[in-house]
Amino acid sequence: MKNFRLLINCKDQAGIIAATTNFISKCEGNINYVDQHVDLQQGVFFMRLEYTLENTKIGKEEFVRSFKSEVGSLFDMNWELSDSESRLKMALFVSKYDHCLYDILGRYKSGELMVEIPFIVSNHKDLKPIADSFNIPFFYVPTSAETREKVQYEHLELLKKYKADFIVLARYMQIIPEGIVAAYPSKIINIHHSFLPAFAGAKPYHSAFKRGVKIIGATSHYVTTELDAGPIIEQDVVRVSHAHSIQDLIAKGRDLEKIVLANAIKQHIQQKVLVYDNKTVVFT
Amino acid sequence: MKNFRLLINCKDQAGIIAATTNFISKCEGNINYVDQHVDLQQGVFFMRLEYTLENTKIGKEEFVRSFKSEVGSLFDMNWELSDSESRLKMALFVSKYDHCLYDILGRYKSGELMVEIPFIVSNHKDLKPIADSFNIPFFYVPTSAETREKVQYEHLELLKKYKADFIVLARYMQIIPEGIVAAYPSKIINIHHSFLPAFAGAKPYHSAFKRGVKIIGATSHYVTTELDAGPIIEQDVVRVSHAHSIQDLIAKGRDLEKIVLANAIKQHIQQKVLVYDNKTVVFT
Amino acid sequence: MKNFRLLINCKDQAGIIAATTNFISKCEGNINYVDQHVDLQQGVFFMRLEYTLENTKIGKEEFVRSFKSEVGSLFDMNWELSDSESRLKMALFVSKYDHCLYDILGRYKSGELMVEIPFIVSNHKDLKPIADSFNIPFFYVPTSAETREKVQYEHLELLKKYKADFIVLARYMQIIPEGIVAAYPSKIINIHHSFLPAFAGAKPYHSAFKRGVKIIGATSHYVTTELDAGPIIEQDVVRVSHAHSIQDLIAKGRDLEKIVLANAIKQHIQQKVLVYDNKTVVFT
Amino acid sequence: MKNFRLLINCKDQAGIIAATTNFISKCEGNINYVDQHVDLQQGVFFMRLEYTLENTKIGKEEFVRSFKSEVGSLFDMNWELSDSESRLKMALFVSKYDHCLYDILGRYKSGELMVEIPFIVSNHKDLKPIADSFNIPFFYVPTSAETREKVQYEHLELLKKYKADFIVLARYMQIIPEGIVAAYPSKIINIHHSFLPAFAGAKPYHSAFKRGVKIIGATSHYVTTELDAGPIIEQDVVRVSHAHSIQDLIAKGRDLEKIVLANAIKQHIQQKVLVYDNKTVVFT
Repeated sequence: MKNFRLLINCKDQAGIIAATTNFISKCEGNINYVDQHVDLQQGVFFMRLEYTLENTKIGKEEFVRSFKSEVGSLFDMNWELSDSESRLKMALFVSKYDHCLYDILGRYKSGELMVEIPFIVSNHKDLKPIADSFNIPFFYVPTSAETREKVQYEHLELLKKYKADFIVLARYMQIIPEGIVAAYPSKIINIHHSFLPAFAGAKPYHSAFKRGVKIIGATSHYVTTELDAGPIIEQDVVRVSHAHSIQDLIAKGRDLEKIVLANAIKQHIQQKVLVYDNKTVVFT
Repeated sequence: MKNFRLLINCKDQAGIIAATTNFISKCEGNINYVDQHVDLQQGVFFMRLEYTLENTKIGKEEFVRSFKSEVGSLFDMNWELSDSESRLKMALFVSKYDHCLYDILGRYKSGELMVEIPFIVSNHKDLKPIADSFNIPFFYVPTSAETREKVQYEHLELLKKYKADFIVLARYMQIIPEGIVAAYPSKIINIHHSFLPAFAGAKPYHSAFKRGVKIIGATSHYVTTELDAGPIIEQDVVRVSHAHSIQDLIAKGRDLEKIVLANAIKQHIQQKVLVYDNKTVVFT
Repeated sequence: MKNFRLLINCKDQAGIIAATTNFISKCEGNINYVDQHVDLQQGVFFMRLEYTLENTKIGKEEFVRSFKSEVGSLFDMNWELSDSESRLKMALFVSKYDHCLYDILGRYKSGELMVEIPFIVSNHKDLKPIADSFNIPFFYVPTSAETREKVQYEHLELLKKYKADFIVLARYMQIIPEGIVAAYPSKIINIHHSFLPAFAGAKPYHSAFKRGVKIIGATSHYVTTELDAGPIIEQDVVRVSHAHSIQDLIAKGRDLEKIVLANAIKQHIQQKVLVYDNKTVVFT
Repeated sequence: MKNFRLLINCKDQAGIIAATTNFISKCEGNINYVDQHVDLQQGVFFMRLEYTLENTKIGKEEFVRSFKSEVGSLFDMNWELSDSESRLKMALFVSKYDHCLYDILGRYKSGELMVEIPFIVSNHKDLKPIADSFNIPFFYVPTSAETREKVQYEHLELLKKYKADFIVLARYMQIIPEGIVAAYPSKIINIHHSFLPAFAGAKPYHSAFKRGVKIIGATSHYVTTELDAGPIIEQDVVRVSHAHSIQDLIAKGRDLEKIVLANAIKQHIQQKVLVYDNKTVVFT
């Protein structure tokens, strides 16, 4: 008995849900979850299903072949099927801040994040002891304006060697070059320490303090070539007041960053996120 | 072209979604929304669909007849079909507090609440001027321990005369007798001024103050015969501190009560709420 | 026995609190509340006190005279004293949206907002019936690019005639000209339907939808000559998802706007807000 | 130059603030922060001050002596003075759950929690490797109904030997005997995984699921002899829905527990919490 997840998007048209659920029913699959969304403005249909195949005679390959010919091609679908037991490989990029790293590794060790972490890479050596204490390979790849291409090459080599499925920037604080963005489309998760689109760019807590906002936030998004402008996966906020200094905002923000990034990672690995038109559909 | 809502619950079993969506597809209906939920512990399946029938040749009656024989009886479904244009009749029960009443009537006048309000009934005369200024019939039915049966009779007569579909207790502050609860099962919405199950019963703000909680709440629920123990529809909270007096809690709570009650009413009239096992499924 | 509020700001220096509280103590005043804030970056000190004078022999005038010579001038203070019983006159500017108006008038009638409302002015006639039903004078002053000066003149005449202490823009949706801003510095409260500084300007819900944010907000701020850039008094947010249309955002935002504006008004009339450096200190 | 914190509570009476700030002013101290609270029902006054003594000629001892005779005894104050540089010793009690432990130790290593952690004690061996990887002594003290007295003795010996100032129960899941509660009054911080007073006692997530609440919470409180009934320091909540299983509630609750406990610890070590009448005053 196996659990599968099926993600679909296509032009909105009559009969998609019936055809899809019919097909699964015919394969003696039992649907445990279905959520769908229609973007009425764009005329696009999105669906996520979880189902169980008890009839082991039908393997994943056969299902894929039949679904493609009988349903997928009929509606011109983009679709993706995955086994819910498989664990994605998550590469971690960090810099000097340790709070997101500690948080992710704690959750990983507790079994809360169902991933493998093949390696951690950083442009500073500061966090190597943490990687060591969790027994995860750590690579030091210093960055500078001159070495940009070399750095990109080294990063891509690491990602290839360790077969990374997606990348998490746990406060990496460096711009990701186009070559890596192109290799990992909608597969690089960043945490930005503001409530985007407010305070994009550098030093958002300083800007928030200067503007005198009464609430600060954090935003997790997929990285695109435009800085801090990729599809938003998750956001959260916390109330602040005049009594809080910039240091207080930074301290309060740390907890937000941890929670928001962890939630985005969880949603990504459970394949609950669909990207369309620089926005996300995040199924619950 | 007409919009319909279909609510279903039945024993969880394979093929429900396929059969239902197939049927609608066959009637040339276009599904705009589907959400479903499976209570795995109880083995119960819940679904809510919104669909458009463009083929006006199939009327509601014909749809109902065919769906019953071809789908409903097959899966032993409880199901309910409604036309999204129809407006429910909402009876308002109030006492002396006016904030929820002002809020509901403001929303009603703005067109935010798609209901009819046939009458307002109260055990005090205080709020009659508000009813008058909104041109809604107001009935004064005083209550006392001795007149309980007479009061229930008068209430039931009013509900019958005005064909009320459901009742909203906008801080009515009186216990609803079994006769009315039985006549309106899962159709009486109350707002309780605490985060239930904490501080059930009288004077919850006083109890919250005494216990020194750092957050207060409000809860909207369907009324059952057990006080403050019915299925919860909606809750919300707000942060408080030692600096707040009981009067401050009451003032802060008023906004919570208004919002939580209004949201519960909206979800009810859009038929997004299903009751099962003294809990609610609230579709988004 | 009378209750007073004293607001102070001055250059931060040793001995301010002692001198002030000493003085009140000497007048046989009893301090019920004190809150202070130091902006360490700017070196500015802020304080708010509430105190009771039981010794009726000392009137407000005498207190003012003595405080000025014995304390205020010593520390070069900006300070303001007010009687907590006095009611400010609040002018309401509205356009076509009625939700904030209903909310404010409901609170006003309930006695929740301790103000007088001398008049409502609007550039449309739509909301006149609401003003009428609450027995508040309503003035229709249509606006256009050509009549800008005339409109400003009429507004200022109304404000003068009715001795308005401050202005609330309850979704007025028009830019306030410099002449009025200059006449009411830190005394015009606006509600902007976004989480500023994100989505300043027109159609913020549309922009929020397009950007795909997961949280929307509302911001109440004092009006300055720069659009949507004045000192923020209060903000609040609510969670949204891909499932929400622009219409849904607008509907959810309405509740935010009501609550945030009402809270800002309350803080203003209790003189809890101090403006400095385009930011606010909001005492609790 | 040294920073001090002064906490005061006493019967409410005229002149307390003036006398206290006057005294500090006379010592050439500069007050950076003052917050006060009056419980009008109980007639009790609370104050917290932070001040800097630049005049090093006045030591802490001299200040204490003079303050006592000139101010403290005059108003019959309970007061406490502390040097803001000193680090409290925080003993950690854990069981099998690791999420709060990872969170606390991550914050401790990052320098976010200004404490010393002399030891971790547990009734299970499971978390020893975590203690080891952070180089903190770990003691295994198994518990059972028969060994209750022996366990209390061992715990008290550890607390004495390591001079623990306060205790944090990071999901310790065992009732603390009276002997330890008496030795650490208002100095044992527990995290309870519900929004108290709702769902006190065992298995709160199961109870919350059964009741069908739409919001779950976590509560940090000081331990008293009555289970889950001590003074509440901090609470937070998160929204849930019918779609969440008990396992989902547990997973969502973990993040709440971490944040709420960490905030309570921070407030305690900065001496921002005053306990009175089984409630807390938590200064900001």
